Amino acid sequence: MTGYSNNQLYIALVHHPVVDKNGATIASAVTNLDLHDIARACRTYGVKGYYVITPLEDQQVLVERILSHWLIGQGGTYNPKRRQALDLIRLKATFGEMLGDIQTAHGCPPVTVATTARPDMGNLSYTRLRAKLAGDTAPVVLAFGTAWGLSPAFMADADYILDPLVGSGNYNHLSVRSAVAIMLDRLLGKR
Amino acid sequence: MTGYSNNQLYIALVHHPVVDKNGATIASAVTNLDLHDIARACRTYGVKGYYVITPLEDQQVLVERILSHWLIGQGGTYNPKRRQALDLIRLKATFGEMLGDIQTAHGCPPVTVATTARPDMGNLSYTRLRAKLAGDTAPVVLAFGTAWGLSPAFMADADYILDPLVGSGNYNHLSVRSAVAIMLDRLLGKR
Repeated sequence: MTGYSNNQLYIALVHHPVVDKNGATIASAVTNLDLHDIARACRTYGVKGYYVITPLEDQQVLVERILSHWLIGQGGTYNPKRRQALDLIRLKATFGEMLGDIQTAHGCPPVTVATTARPDMGNLSYTRLRAKLAGDTAPVVLAFGTAWGLSPAFMADADYILDPLVGSGNYNHLSVRSAVAIMLDRLLGKR
Repeated sequence: MTGYSNNQLYIALVHHPVVDKNGATIASAVTNLDLHDIARACRTYGVKGYYVITPLEDQQVLVERILSHWLIGQGGTYNPKRRQALDLIRLKATFGEMLGDIQTAHGCPPVTVATTARPDMGNLSYTRLRAKLAGDTAPVVLAFGTAWGLSPAFMADADYILDPLVGSGNYNHLSVRSAVAIMLDRLLGKR
């Protein structure tokens, strides 16, 4: 009933390697509403899969407990629409494991696109990525960092860096939940 | 330092009158991340003010406690960017009180624009509202419902209803946080 518009775009929410407010590389904690809000946006815009990446075992247990409640427990009965959204989530310990998973499904590795709020790092426009998603079928993963963002090493490894969102001035501190929603609308939204 | 792009657009997050999953009119509870995420999106896109509307006194106390932590307490020292965002929030008991507040500031009442996820209710396009915000200076308030959305009576009283966001199919269950972010990007974002 939901009708995918896109069979190639994946979202990755990365909890490691990300940086803290001082720039040190850390593994961040999972936020419950990151699972819900981003899954709902992914389902609304027809994203193929939503990978939650965390190497921390206690955080993996937390994610599994939340998913269990909504996918097979009382949550899914109370709110079936929420179940449809959270059903898009796949939990992986590392970004590399996710790449392997996507390669297995598609027969080729995905193009990796990192996101950032920093100016002057982007080398891929929304127009160009939107056209790519409309024009070919190769898998693409759009990676978002939690905490203070993806680590410099992660950014350097990505195939592309999507242009940052620009608001009205130099204040640019959206939540990752808001950034995912806006970027999906720019890339896949009907106008 | 933040540079408003817009001196006339206000966001209202309405906790009453909204409907529950069965369509009954209720007053909903305040969600902490609604304050943070929407304030950050408002500051990023240069919104003039973010009104949180709740008639429930215990919820008003909760909002005041959160704002106090971030505006004058330890939160603002830890994260000054968050303080800049939450500084946009004004707490009011009713939508009518908010209208009076805006009228006092501008000398005329705001145009009220309700939002909904329901198809076939919209009578105002993003293109038209974006042009209005770029072209004249009359105040506009964009109202979002929590829970299962704004009540039918509230919708009937609004001057306009903004076209709903459309994703890839008929699944259309964004969080209010995501919906605000996407709509602000469509109305005020730089392209």
